[in-house]
Amino acid sequence: MSEPVPAQVEDNDLLLLTDLYQLTMVQAYWKESMQEWATFSLFFRKLPPSRRFMLACGQQHAAALVSQLRFSQANLERLAGTGKFDDGFLEWLEAFRFSGDIWTLPEGTPVFENEPFLEVDAPIAEAQLLESLIMNLVQPETVLASKAVRIAMAADDRPVVDFGMRRMHGVDAAMRGVRAYRTAGIAATSNVLGGLRHGLALNGTMAHSYILAHDDEREAFRTFARQYPETVLLVDTHDTLKGVQMVIELMDEEPELKVSGVRLDSGDLGDLAHRSRAMLDEAGYQTIKIIASSGLDEYKIQALLKDRAPIDAFGVGTQMGVAADAPVIDLSYKLVEYAERPRVKHSSGKINLPGRKQVYRRRDARGRYAGDIIACRDEKRTDGEALLVQLVNNGRLDDEAMALADSARERVQAALKDMPDAMKELEEGATDYPVELSDELSRLVEALS
Amino acid sequence: MSEPVPAQVEDNDLLLLTDLYQLTMVQAYWKESMQEWATFSLFFRKLPPSRRFMLACGQQHAAALVSQLRFSQANLERLAGTGKFDDGFLEWLEAFRFSGDIWTLPEGTPVFENEPFLEVDAPIAEAQLLESLIMNLVQPETVLASKAVRIAMAADDRPVVDFGMRRMHGVDAAMRGVRAYRTAGIAATSNVLGGLRHGLALNGTMAHSYILAHDDEREAFRTFARQYPETVLLVDTHDTLKGVQMVIELMDEEPELKVSGVRLDSGDLGDLAHRSRAMLDEAGYQTIKIIASSGLDEYKIQALLKDRAPIDAFGVGTQMGVAADAPVIDLSYKLVEYAERPRVKHSSGKINLPGRKQVYRRRDARGRYAGDIIACRDEKRTDGEALLVQLVNNGRLDDEAMALADSARERVQAALKDMPDAMKELEEGATDYPVELSDELSRLVEALS
Repeated sequence: MSEPVPAQVEDNDLLLLTDLYQLTMVQAYWKESMQEWATFSLFFRKLPPSRRFMLACGQQHAAALVSQLRFSQANLERLAGTGKFDDGFLEWLEAFRFSGDIWTLPEGTPVFENEPFLEVDAPIAEAQLLESLIMNLVQPETVLASKAVRIAMAADDRPVVDFGMRRMHGVDAAMRGVRAYRTAGIAATSNVLGGLRHGLALNGTMAHSYILAHDDEREAFRTFARQYPETVLLVDTHDTLKGVQMVIELMDEEPELKVSGVRLDSGDLGDLAHRSRAMLDEAGYQTIKIIASSGLDEYKIQALLKDRAPIDAFGVGTQMGVAADAPVIDLSYKLVEYAERPRVKHSSGKINLPGRKQVYRRRDARGRYAGDIIACRDEKRTDGEALLVQLVNNGRLDDEAMALADSARERVQAALKDMPDAMKELEEGATDYPVELSDELSRLVEALS
Repeated sequence: MSEPVPAQVEDNDLLLLTDLYQLTMVQAYWKESMQEWATFSLFFRKLPPSRRFMLACGQQHAAALVSQLRFSQANLERLAGTGKFDDGFLEWLEAFRFSGDIWTLPEGTPVFENEPFLEVDAPIAEAQLLESLIMNLVQPETVLASKAVRIAMAADDRPVVDFGMRRMHGVDAAMRGVRAYRTAGIAATSNVLGGLRHGLALNGTMAHSYILAHDDEREAFRTFARQYPETVLLVDTHDTLKGVQMVIELMDEEPELKVSGVRLDSGDLGDLAHRSRAMLDEAGYQTIKIIASSGLDEYKIQALLKDRAPIDAFGVGTQMGVAADAPVIDLSYKLVEYAERPRVKHSSGKINLPGRKQVYRRRDARGRYAGDIIACRDEKRTDGEALLVQLVNNGRLDDEAMALADSARERVQAALKDMPDAMKELEEGATDYPVELSDELSRLVEALS
């Protein structure tokens, strides 16, 4: 009997998507009657060398999702079957409802080293239980949005279309990716389910297989264009410039065919774009757009545009789909307070910030970012905007705070206007953007070291 | 009204997880009455520089899953809502059942450049419809297994435990990852749902938060060890060697506590392992094991063992979780035959292999890999083992062929014994392993170029 093909993971199963030690530690807290509230803080310590900021994404979605989860009977039985858990503890899991608070940055907020994306205040067992899942959900959206925004910046207001679904890390990555790309300012996606669910425009052209399946490239173009007015034709199956010539002849023959563009998908894209543009313009088809794809990332797009390649839109897949140059960040979810006492792990050479926190973003007189202050949550400073908002209050999702996720894309656009120019450079390098600790937080760090 | 938090994707929705152009091309085939059979071939062109082979993983699972999928009414309505599809075509989608054949490599087969993992023979619309999803499913398992097997090799028969779930690309990556790790020879996982579903042993220790939540590290150790006989204690929360000393004192005080190991999670792991081992041995605890974690990959493990670090097991997370040095391969799914005529796209500098194919693996007299031959499927060669097996026959899954997935882990272990030593080196470099085209396939390539 061969292995059955398992179904996709359902929401109902997500509380089991955790590290075993979370469950054993939570059982230990339960046996020890450790029920005091704890605060855990989600942050990263180091920007990847190729990033000057990260876009915090996924944390509102993750918080909203995890705060509503329950253990199903089927999953409690699976846990019982491991022999690692007491009946009394399994009853506790059965009754589990998240009763704590969650603070998060609004999605699409630029975030820097050591700044909390999210803080969970809850009875320690509850906060511990959610660690691994929150991290697994926030990681891909943050990593993918932070890559995608660089690609959108490089394209300099030309639309970028996500073609990456086929090379992403599975179903959930492809779905979360579209959500992240929408936030980051990507114009459209080829991913049908992702685009429909997350409200990003669908876009697509045609594949080489369509051309190859027809005995004649010209007839393939004609047939497709007749069926799909305003379509984009893929011209490089055999020879890019011959393909462009064929499109011109087709339009000359059948002026009622409304082809909106040609896609170049191989070869020297800059050179081919220049030549294709010249051919199209000369033939009177100035309105036909040129779309380029094939191994693109922010560096290649920047280089093409620096050479004034007449490309109107970019299709980007693989590199954006896995954030290939920085596919992971060192997200941590650390205990920073228990039983009203700030706590930290002492690590040589690493900063660990104790206690409940808030991040303030200061601006200059023109509204431009001037620097961040990481502070204790209760300081109530007036020298900057407090970024973390309370999203979950005693287990209840605050709809108004959650609505901030809807404006994530606009938040990114506003941030790109307001951030220092050095932060938007694509090359590796420091931005000298000041992220400081408040005096009160500094004293607390000092007191605990 | 804020954005609702969408549920996880269900099997029922998977046919919509595709690129838009697949659906528009398939509608075009339908309108054009193009119903001849096509063959599509899944392969990659280039090994990543840091890989000497890839493990083909996920292709049996993907083929079994996609061959059984249907369009739900809800999804047909969503497609209708886009305005891009005719009613007649939506009826075709409603009636869609995969009726073709799928050939795959057994999971866990080492695979090289240009060798098909999988070939789909089906009416062209059906084969085109499955492209994006098959690729999305095969990509993560192949990429993650191919990283994991290197880590397992570096550990040189010491167990490696997967700790990566929290930093992987979402829910599905974490689940597929465990399946890939099982194939690759990883000993256990901390991922509860993944381990339970995919039959990999569960393992876990404790986190720094547990220590920090207790006012006293020693009491935290005592309490945890009393609850969990044979547990592993995490000793680096404040100071690794003081932590080891505390464990020794604890065992001296309460000999009935059966601690099985200590985990080192920061600092100079080699040096700390040597010192910890010396302390434990001197105190008479030769059987207590040392487990190391913290940013490990195959290179760090190899370096630790080269320095004879007395480490008994490794916990590996982030680097394995995203295959950080090669998070993606250039998997392609190309039309190679339509209407009984082999076809290829002509790409400058790239090989494209037309027609239905088979891969033969030759062995020397001692059973060691001697070289591969990519051949036409009908050649019936006798100078090697034919690797591709027919998994789906006229839409029906062959249980016997599918059962080969159950032995994927054993297949990898056998392959590691039989492959040339140069293929198992971890450094970048060529292996000179011959992958050749058969004369018949060479002639076909020539004829179509």
